[in-house]
Parts: sequence; C-alpha cells; structure tokens
Amino acid sequence: MDVLLTYDIADTSKSGAARLRRLSAVCERYGQRIQFSVFQFRFSPTRLARLISEVEDVIDHQQDSVILYRFPDNIEKFANHLGRPQQKGLGEPWMV
Amino acid sequence: MDVLLTYDIADTSKSGAARLRRLSAVCERYGQRIQFSVFQFRFSPTRLARLISEVEDVIDHQQDSVILYRFPDNIEKFANHLGRPQQKGLGEPWMV
Repeated sequence: MDVLLTYDIADTSKSGAARLRRLSAVCERYGQRIQFSVFQFRFSPTRLARLISEVEDVIDHQQDSVILYRFPDNIEKFANHLGRPQQKGLGEPWMV
Repeated sequence: MDVLLTYDIADTSKSGAARLRRLSAVCERYGQRIQFSVFQFRFSPTRLARLISEVEDVIDHQQDSVILYRFPDNIEKFANHLGRPQQKGLGEPWMV
C-alpha cells in the first residue's frame, strides 16, 4: 500500500523543534521524504498501524497536525509532478 | 474530483518568497489550505487543468517542487488525521 504523510509541527518553540526532529526520524525509518513536510511510504497495513502509533507518541495533539493518505494503487498513478523532479520514486533502486 | 497539492518553494531568496505568495494566492482561489504547504481542492478536471497551468506560470521549474494527487473518491475516505483537527473539511459550510 502506498501512503502519503503531510505534517505541520508547531516548531517555533524548543519542544516543537524536538518533536519535528523525532517525527522526521520516525518517518525516515518507514519511508522517504519527498518534500520538506511530506513523506511517502510503501508498506503493509500492519506497518502503517505501527507508524501511526509511533507518530501519535511523538506529536502534540493540540498543536501539531499530521495527515496520512492511503492510495488504492501505485501513488504515481494519481500524481502530477510540476517543477523540480522528485529525487527518487518509491520502488526505484537506491544508488549505493 | 478531490485533489491534494503539496509544495516546496525555495523561498530563501526574495524571488522565492514572492513565488510562495503568488502560489498561495493561486491555490486559495481554487481551494483550501489545510496545512502550511498543503492545499485541498474539490473541482472538475477542467479546473484542475487551469490550476496546473497557473501553477506552472508561477514556479521556478529548477528549484521548486509541486505535486498534485488526484483522489478517485471523497478524499476523507483515504485520510487519517492525527493531532490538531483540520480547520474545515471540503464541502462543509463556511461559518459566515
């Protein structure tokens, strides 16, 4: 399943900046950053449930907003990219 | 059709800040901001094509990234909201 995550973390305070770092670290363990506050994932429903639970542990539920969007098929079938190309698509080999 | 737009504008320069303002103004004419760099739209394929053309006029195609995601049904069927609730959903009446 392909999933997109967008976030707004109230990072003007020290604690907000810490939450931002922790959220990024969690998301980077599950998928790939495609824009500053947007991540993309390709994983099972079980891993999605684990990601959600880890994100819920990190964010401030009054100040921060995180939205996950589940796609019924390959996310690229629903996407139009304008401007700078995305560094790497999901499923493309990592250049190591 | 429900559409999500996410953007990364290289706004460290004066011209970047101007592009950011112009992109926001374009998006606000077609839909609703739901997070700092995320907009949601509910409109026809024709209006999507016009939005894309206006966005292409505004952005720097080397530096900026804009991605639009088309949803096959009501976007809320695909979304999980964590933390701060979204100010207003698409299609909900505006409180005036």
